[in-house]
This record gives sequence, structure tokens and C-alpha cells, in this order.
Amino acid sequence: MTEILSRPNVSSVEIDQLAIDTIRFLAADMVQAANSGHPGMPMGAAPMAWTLWSRHLRHDPAAPDWADRDRFVLSAGHGSALLYALLHMFGYDLPEDELRNFRQLGSRTPGHPEYGETPGVECTTGPLGQGLAMAVGMALAERMAHARHPGLTDHHTYVIVGDGCLMEGISHEAASFAGHLGLGRLVVLWDDNSITIDGAVDRSCSDDQLARFAAYGWHTEAVLDGTDVAAIDQAIARAKADPRPSFIAVRTVIGQGAPGIEGTSKAHGSPLGEEVLAQSKELAGWDHPPFTVPDPIRAVCSVLGDVGAKAHANWLATFADLERSAPKAAAEFRRTRERGLPEALDEALAAVPSENARATRQSSQACLDAAGSVLPELVGGSADLAGSTGTVYDDLVTRNDYSNRAIAFGIREFGMAAILNGMSLHGGFRVFGSTFLVFADYLRPALRLSALMRQPVVYVFTHDSIAVGEDGPTHQPIAHIESLRVIPGLTVLRPADDLETAEAWRQALERTDGPTALILSRQSVPQLRGKGFDVEGSVSVEIVATGSEVALAASVAEELRAEGYGVRVVSAPDRSRYTPDRTATRVSIEAGSTSGWTSLVDLAIGIDDFGASGPGGEVMAHLGFTTEAVLARIREHLGDGS
Amino acid sequence: MTEILSRPNVSSVEIDQLAIDTIRFLAADMVQAANSGHPGMPMGAAPMAWTLWSRHLRHDPAAPDWADRDRFVLSAGHGSALLYALLHMFGYDLPEDELRNFRQLGSRTPGHPEYGETPGVECTTGPLGQGLAMAVGMALAERMAHARHPGLTDHHTYVIVGDGCLMEGISHEAASFAGHLGLGRLVVLWDDNSITIDGAVDRSCSDDQLARFAAYGWHTEAVLDGTDVAAIDQAIARAKADPRPSFIAVRTVIGQGAPGIEGTSKAHGSPLGEEVLAQSKELAGWDHPPFTVPDPIRAVCSVLGDVGAKAHANWLATFADLERSAPKAAAEFRRTRERGLPEALDEALAAVPSENARATRQSSQACLDAAGSVLPELVGGSADLAGSTGTVYDDLVTRNDYSNRAIAFGIREFGMAAILNGMSLHGGFRVFGSTFLVFADYLRPALRLSALMRQPVVYVFTHDSIAVGEDGPTHQPIAHIESLRVIPGLTVLRPADDLETAEAWRQALERTDGPTALILSRQSVPQLRGKGFDVEGSVSVEIVATGSEVALAASVAEELRAEGYGVRVVSAPDRSRYTPDRTATRVSIEAGSTSGWTSLVDLAIGIDDFGASGPGGEVMAHLGFTTEAVLARIREHLGDGS
Repeated sequence: MTEILSRPNVSSVEIDQLAIDTIRFLAADMVQAANSGHPGMPMGAAPMAWTLWSRHLRHDPAAPDWADRDRFVLSAGHGSALLYALLHMFGYDLPEDELRNFRQLGSRTPGHPEYGETPGVECTTGPLGQGLAMAVGMALAERMAHARHPGLTDHHTYVIVGDGCLMEGISHEAASFAGHLGLGRLVVLWDDNSITIDGAVDRSCSDDQLARFAAYGWHTEAVLDGTDVAAIDQAIARAKADPRPSFIAVRTVIGQGAPGIEGTSKAHGSPLGEEVLAQSKELAGWDHPPFTVPDPIRAVCSVLGDVGAKAHANWLATFADLERSAPKAAAEFRRTRERGLPEALDEALAAVPSENARATRQSSQACLDAAGSVLPELVGGSADLAGSTGTVYDDLVTRNDYSNRAIAFGIREFGMAAILNGMSLHGGFRVFGSTFLVFADYLRPALRLSALMRQPVVYVFTHDSIAVGEDGPTHQPIAHIESLRVIPGLTVLRPADDLETAEAWRQALERTDGPTALILSRQSVPQLRGKGFDVEGSVSVEIVATGSEVALAASVAEELRAEGYGVRVVSAPDRSRYTPDRTATRVSIEAGSTSGWTSLVDLAIGIDDFGASGPGGEVMAHLGFTTEAVLARIREHLGDGS
Repeated sequence: MTEILSRPNVSSVEIDQLAIDTIRFLAADMVQAANSGHPGMPMGAAPMAWTLWSRHLRHDPAAPDWADRDRFVLSAGHGSALLYALLHMFGYDLPEDELRNFRQLGSRTPGHPEYGETPGVECTTGPLGQGLAMAVGMALAERMAHARHPGLTDHHTYVIVGDGCLMEGISHEAASFAGHLGLGRLVVLWDDNSITIDGAVDRSCSDDQLARFAAYGWHTEAVLDGTDVAAIDQAIARAKADPRPSFIAVRTVIGQGAPGIEGTSKAHGSPLGEEVLAQSKELAGWDHPPFTVPDPIRAVCSVLGDVGAKAHANWLATFADLERSAPKAAAEFRRTRERGLPEALDEALAAVPSENARATRQSSQACLDAAGSVLPELVGGSADLAGSTGTVYDDLVTRNDYSNRAIAFGIREFGMAAILNGMSLHGGFRVFGSTFLVFADYLRPALRLSALMRQPVVYVFTHDSIAVGEDGPTHQPIAHIESLRVIPGLTVLRPADDLETAEAWRQALERTDGPTALILSRQSVPQLRGKGFDVEGSVSVEIVATGSEVALAASVAEELRAEGYGVRVVSAPDRSRYTPDRTATRVSIEAGSTSGWTSLVDLAIGIDDFGASGPGGEVMAHLGFTTEAVLARIREHLGDGS
């Protein structure tokens, strides 16, 4: 249960104002020193941020990894200086020098908050809307962890969003999902400043955001004066008391206190300039050197930090009790947070391969069942394609029961991926999500963040080629596998049969420092291992293929061997590990874009145009994916063609 | 102005029911014949579709390209059989054989509606949510065309959406945008059947959709019985009378009339099966052979078609009048619909190049200004980055003035791209949209549809590399250029200076059969043309580069020449046109993924990991994009290293 902390009464009006000005001018000083950045958001949102951090946020600056800390997400990531100012003031390991090096190479204060670069930064934000969605994922993981370890997990997730976050489509997916699952520990503060980069919000948007969030089943609040600390405090308190997720519109003035530019888009993304900055400080009665945290504020933040440290100490005592009273539960808690795997996993996955032909999406379903049986922390679901993608799994997580493991993400691919990122960042779970490969495009911006943040999210992408058939070009991926392979840090695996699918799942789960995309077939494929890969004598032709095309390669190889060629077939589920045999004529077969293959092989057989609607086998034949057609291409290349 | 058509009174209860059953069983027969497809949606939505097509839709089946027809978009594209049934019944060029060949290779009845494959299909749908957003684009184009030619353009846009469309984030972006611009000619019917692929909608969604759309400023209606033709008719009539865009929730039963599966997800994506189909027909008292359109329905549809033909004839008469009274206006109307370009364009673009160094985004702004001065039909805007992306343009289109040309899309990249597709499909305009290259990921699914539908949308992507600098890895594209190049049918151009930027714009505008992505720098680049490209004597090294890296290549070449090498520099704004000189050692320089270059060159200098936050020049240097660092790599490759 949440401990009610008795916070010392530090909240005099004077202290609040001084603290708010400290945040404002630290942020403005940072931007000015860098001569680059976004001063307007921190200057306008400082009061709400201070109110939240001084009255509500439960955290221990000395232990940014404490499992049961409240999470704070700055979804409006361009306001990074706000977050760095707070972290610095509260004693996180972010000294003044780092603030002075804002946006400089190698600093801990990059232009946008980058997870892993700065203690206290919970996730990478800047690509708008994703912070909100990741926070939804954190709030879901919190409730799910609470259902498993109520004494160890009981915290809130707070978010500050801007207008951009709310205009982005992902805000709809995430907010709708949070409302559906009743994530009452989630509190969103909207920096309602009526300004975007290009000008006034009302140039492009007339949404009634409170009504909109109410339509999602959220509790809503409006604070009409964004400098009114007491009003913000009370709104947050009511939000925490309400069982629904909460959305608080806080009306602010961008760049508040910067004469001549406050309230305009000029305050958004450029330094104030020395002159305006000096005027701002004078108006505020601020006569400290740049980067100053006044002593009274240091003292207050230190006291507040002690409150968090005490809460953390209490939690550690609870955990120590658990280690004595229920050592297995405590060990599991620790293992899952450390992303350790039980030894039983290998055995479970080794039992998956069968003798019968089946689609690799079905192999994957068997792997998921096997892995799930030994990994209680493995949770996830699908963007409404669980049955189709082989991710039918456990009972559904609902607003009344967070102890289950299957998540119905709805038809919200981008939201799903960002929520998975948030769950992974929260810790305690290994997560997966699925959709058709062609819809990897819908979630690509979040997948990129999985890779950038090194989160081991497992993406299950099925229906991986034109063999999808009748659904036609809209549903037939062409560029998709290749476009995933170019994302730095993403492992892309396209297994050919049960054995490779089990190995792919094993690699995906063993990987703890980045995401993996599993590329799986809709159509049945034979179990190939051990068949057709051996070569006798010298090799003159090497055929490399992935996934469902490996069987085709094996069939082609058989024909070529009958003609006297020495042929090696290479299955390359992870193409980045394929080492071409430069002494042989090399041919690749993959039912998608050839662009990444042409440097590896002499003849790349693929598809560089959109597909067609028809039965899968006919479409494959139409586009040259039959033994005969491939043979003809290879013979032509070898110079034996007619 | 809209002519009020006197429609013959064909609406007896019996005729309506017979027509609805005709749609239902045509659709079910199609799916059954193909043994593939989605019968549930057509069977449940047939009454609303019939009501719309019989009472409201203004169209001439003999002239599916009539400029002033109402547009009908089936955003729930998996229900394609519904649309094909209607097109067939109303006498579009879609004979029974095509219905019998539903989902077969080469048919005009692909699995999802594909623009260009079937007369009467207004856009390609299936990727959920995009149909709604394209319809918003059509409705915007209608109002904008109306402002220019009120006598020639005055029609409605109707959409049927499913739950999936409404869960997708793009529905938020599009609906919010439509509400903001007051697109009152847009009428959306929601097939509210409470079922998705995986089961009940309430597994994943609890939105109050009416409240949600009201929050966007829409008029809303609820029809509680989706078989009540009169109620649907009246709701549509009220929607048309309301000045706001309208959202009508029509409660339906998926697979209605199919015993045992109606109202369940089993009805969604599989054929009914011969037995259930036979039972369904028996229950409905339907005793016709498969694919029958009963004579009374043929007769009614023919009469309704005549109404549309008459409206079309009236319109043609109006246009003929205009050709006499205002031949220039009529010619412009025709030219813009035919996507012809005035001769003045070349001259205007030729005047762009200047002598001064500047960012190619600035060059592009100059091109846009030049093109806009001679192309009144060139309209577009930015996802709230007009100032940053060099797309400041004309006055803003507002709900009170659609005669302007600049569109503030808001922070809605995906919505922007889909809306641009809809505008382009509507016709009469050439369209562009802009954002940072890194956010091309956000709109990628719509860009793919631009290519699949062959729409000449111009995408302006700026801030095209790590040279973005301080904004850091989230804002620094790495995989993006390459991931665009693999999309079939998309032209990707990365010009190096003013001359190439003007040429890129010219190509983009001359292209009428597909989209173009312009990849532009944030940072200043020199005007290169004519400098540093000439070679004297034999060529031993060829350096190929794009965009801002061409200047770097030129600088490197100069050094190498001083060392005695014969060096050619190739600027390859369109890499697909680059033909390597296989007699030379080839080096590519592009500040992004190398994967597409390795087959073309011996040494590909690029970036295959995420960037870093710092001043642009420092980040470039840090990642090896200086003359010295590149020289060292080349010397090493040439064996002269260290």
C-alpha cells in the first residue's frame, strides 16, 4: 500500500516562488549557454512541475533505480531543460557543470531527454505523443506489478504533455487504452499554453480536450491559472484520489516572464537572448549569477529528498522482510527486475519443434506458450490480431484484474509499441506485441525508440510476404523487412521452421539490451532442419534465403544438384550474420525488397514492386516465387538459360 | 450550388429490404466463391449503405470520374464486397464475372478496394483509419475547389468507418482537423457492431465515441437500429443540414442474418460456409441463384442511376456555359484536374538558384514560392513546422475562407499525409506537406499509400541528417533516407544545392503518377554546380554523394587530386539513377545508413548507429564527416593509410 509520507511544510509562498524562478532561470541559462534549445516550455511549466515535485512525487534522488519510485515523464521532451533543472535541484547526479554543458557532445544533458544518459530520466522523449503513451505503459506495468507484489509496487506515474502530444494520433490510442483499463495511478498535466512552433494552437486545433478525455473515461480537472501552486496541488490531490486516470489542463503562458516574447511562438524554440534574459531576471527580482540554486531552495530540496530517501529506506526494509519471509518471491522480484532468465527456458523452447509442417506464426505460438510456462514475467498481446499472429496467451488483463498476462491492445499498433516500451522501462516484465508485418509501419516510430532506448521488446510480425494472398497489396509487405533491418540496434530474425523459430525466441529473450523483430509466415512451411543443406564436393552455387523462402531454396538446390552443380543452401534468419562464400556464385531469395541483398550476392531474387490480390500460391507464382521460375532466373544468370 | 434532385420515390419497405438482401448475399456469395474475405461487415452495414446510396449519394455510374460527384469512401476496406456489390448493382463497369472473381489474380475485385483497379473506388483502403483521413482530405479539397469554382464543385463526402478506424490514432488527427476546419460536407457513418477481429470491442475499448467527436466540434447522431432505413435516412439528412462535419453512430449486428455466427467475431474474416450461407438465405426468404440482382432492384438502381446521370448532364451544361462565358477559368479547371503544368513553371524555377550558400530547405522555400506563383493549384502546408521546413506559403485556409492555399495541418504528420492523399485523389490540386525527415516514420503508412495509389504528393522532409545537431538522436535521421528508398514507386531526391533543388521540385511537379520525397538540409551548403566536378585525365577514384555531403565530397576530391589521384565527384540526388564507374575505386558519402550503398561502391561512408546531441558541426566531426576523416578512410581503403 502507499505510505502516506508526512512531508515537512516547506511550502511558503515565497519559497515556492523562489523555487519556480530557480527552475525558470536554470532552464533559460542552459538554453542561453548552449545558444540552442527551448526556454518557453520550462518557463511556463515551472510552477506545475515544482508543485508536483515538491508536494507529490515520491522519489529518492540518490537511487534513481528504486523500483517503487513514482515515475515522471516529460512527454514534451523539447522542454528537457525543465527536467534537468529539477534533477539538479533535487540532488540527482547532475552537477552544475552538466547544466552548463547543456546540449553539448558527451554531456549528460542532451537536447532531448535520452534514457540511459541522465540519472532520473525515465524515457527518451521528443518524438511527440510517445512520452504520454510510454507513461501509460509504465502505469499499466505498475498495476500489473502491484497485483503480483502489492507490498513492493505501489506508485504513481506523472506526465507533463504539451499541445503537440495531444494532437498526435498516439495520444488517442494511449488515452483510450488507459481509460479502458482504468489506470487510476496515472496523472497527466497538460501544459496548456495555446502555442505551437508555428503560432497559436487555434491555427490548427479546436479540440475540447477536457471533453475528449472525459469521453475516454478519464477524470478531468482544469486549473485556470498555471501559476497557482495551491490550485495545481489540489487538482493533483483530487486526481490521485480518483480511481480513473486523470487529465489536468493547466493554463500557462509560454516563456512566462520574458518580456516581449512571452505568450508567443518566439518563446518556443530559440534562446531568449542575453538582453531579454537579463530583463526577465530583473523583472523577477532575480539577481543571482547564472546557474544559481539559492541556498533556501537547496535546503528545501534536500529536505524533500530526505523524505524520498526515507520512503526508499522503508521500502528496502519491506523487501528485506520479504527476503526472510518469502525468499522465493523476493528472488523472483529481483530476477525479473534484472531481466534474468530461468534455466528452464532453454528446455521449454527445445521441446517446441515438431515434425509437421506449419506456419512459423504457429511455431511462434508454440514458443510463446513454452516460454510463458516458465517466464511468469512474460506479458504482452496484440493489436487485435492475437488469433492471426499466434499470440493467444493467458487471460486478459482487465481493469478489475491486473494479475493476468495477456493484453488486448486494440487496433492501436503505435500505441501498443509505445506502451510496451513504457512497460519495459518500468521493469519487472518482459514484453511482446504483435501485428501483421505490413503494419510495422504504423508503429515504426516507437520501434525506433525501443532501439534507441535499448529496450528488449519482442515484436511479433506475421503475414510476412505476398504469400498473404487475397488481402492484396495493402496487406503484403514488400519494403518492410529491409526497412526494419536498417534501424540501428534492432535485431531482425526471419526463421524458416520450428527449430529456427524456437532459436529466434531464445535469442530475443536472452537479449536484454535491445528489441527484436520476429518475422513470421502466414502460410505453412516444412520442417527443414537437416534436410537439403548438406553439400557433397565443391560448392559452385550458394543460395541464401530467409523464412518461408528457405524451403524454396532447398527445392531449387535439389534441381540444380541433379544438373550437377555443387549447391549450398544457407538459411539466414539473421542476415547480419550471413558471411557470403565469395568463391561461389551467390543467389538470394527473399519475397521482399532486394536492396539489402545486392551487395551480398550475385543475383538477388526478390520483389521491388507492390504485390497483388489473389490466392497466396498464385500470387507467389505470379511474382516468380516457384521452383521453376527461380531455377530459370538462376540458369539465366549462370549462362545456361535458353 | 447543390441542385436539389427530385429522386423518384422508389423507397417502399419491400424494395429496401430486397435491395439490402441483394447487397448482403452478393457480398456473401463473393466471399464464399473466393473462400476468402470478410462477409460480416457487408451483411451488417448493408442497410446504411443502401440508404446512403439510394437516398443521398449523387453519382453517375457511367462517369465515375465526374469531378462533382459525391465521394464515397469505405474506410473499413475489408468490407470491400459491400462496395463491389453496390457498384455492380448501380451499373458501374463491374459485371457479374468480376464479382465471381472476387479476390482473384487480375480481377477488378481485389481483397481490399484498390484505387485505379475498379471504377467507382475512390481510394485504397484496408490499412485502418486512413480511409477516414483521406475522406477528410477529399472534403477539404471539395471546399477549396468550391471556393474557386462554386458552380462546378459542390458535393458531399461520405464515409463508412468501423471500430478499427476509430481506434487508430489517425482517426484522432483527421477528425480533429475536420472539426477545426468545419468541413460540413463530410458525413461519417460508423458501423457500430461492437466486434473486432479478436472478439468484443469492449475487450479493448470503452470510448464514448459520440462524446469524443462532439469534443472535436462535430455534429453527432445515433441510430440505435442499424436496419431502420428511415432513421438512417433522417440522420443523414440532418447531418447534411448541419454546418459541422457529422458523425452518425449506427448500431449494427456483424454478419446479420447468418445463424450461429451473427454478432460474433466469427463473422468478421471468414466465409460463412455453404451451410450457413444457405441457412441465411432461407431465413431471409432469398431463393435466387448466387450473384443474383433481382429485376426490381435492377430497375430501381437504374432509375437512381438516371438521376445521377441527369445531375451529371446538368453539370456538363454548366461547364459548357463556363467555357463560353469564362474560357480561361474553364481551361484552368480542366488543366488542374488533368494535372497539366503551365509553361511558366520551368522559367520560374530556373530563376531560383542564387550565388549564396544556403540550406537546401531555404532553396526549397524559394522553389515553393516560385512554383506557387505560377501554379494556383499548388496547395499544402506543414505539420507545424512551416517556418523550419521552408514551407511558409500564402494565407491560411480557415473554416471561413477556403480560397487560400496554406494548410496548417497541426502536429499531425500521419493525418497530414493521408489528408494530402485525399486531396490529390479528389483532384484539382497539386499538394505538398512537410515535416522533419525523422518524422517521416510517423507518416510512413500514408506515404506508402501515396505510392500504391500513384498520387503525386510532394513530401518535403528537412533536417535530413545528424547535422541537425543539438536536438540529438531522437531528431537525427539515420535509417530514414534508405527506408524511403525501398518503398516501391516513391521517388527520393536529395539535392545538393539550389540548382539541384529547383530541378528536384521540377521533377516532383512533372511527375503525375506517384509521390516524391525531397530530402533537404537544415544547415547551409555552398552552391556547387560547376565547381569541383570536372575531371582531367583518367579517373581512379569516384566519389558519389548526395545532398549536403556533396560539398564534403568535393573538398575531399580536391585533396586527393593534390595527391595525384584522378577523382570524379558524382552528385546523385536520385540514387536510383546513379551508374557506378566500375573501372574506378568508388566511395560513397551519405550521412545515414550505408546498407543501400554497399552494392554500388567499394567503400560506403555513412552512419549505421544513432547520432548524438551537440552542435551540428561537432556531431558531424564526431561521426567522421570532415574532410580529414573521410580522407583518412579513403586513404586507408586505397592502401595508403597510416
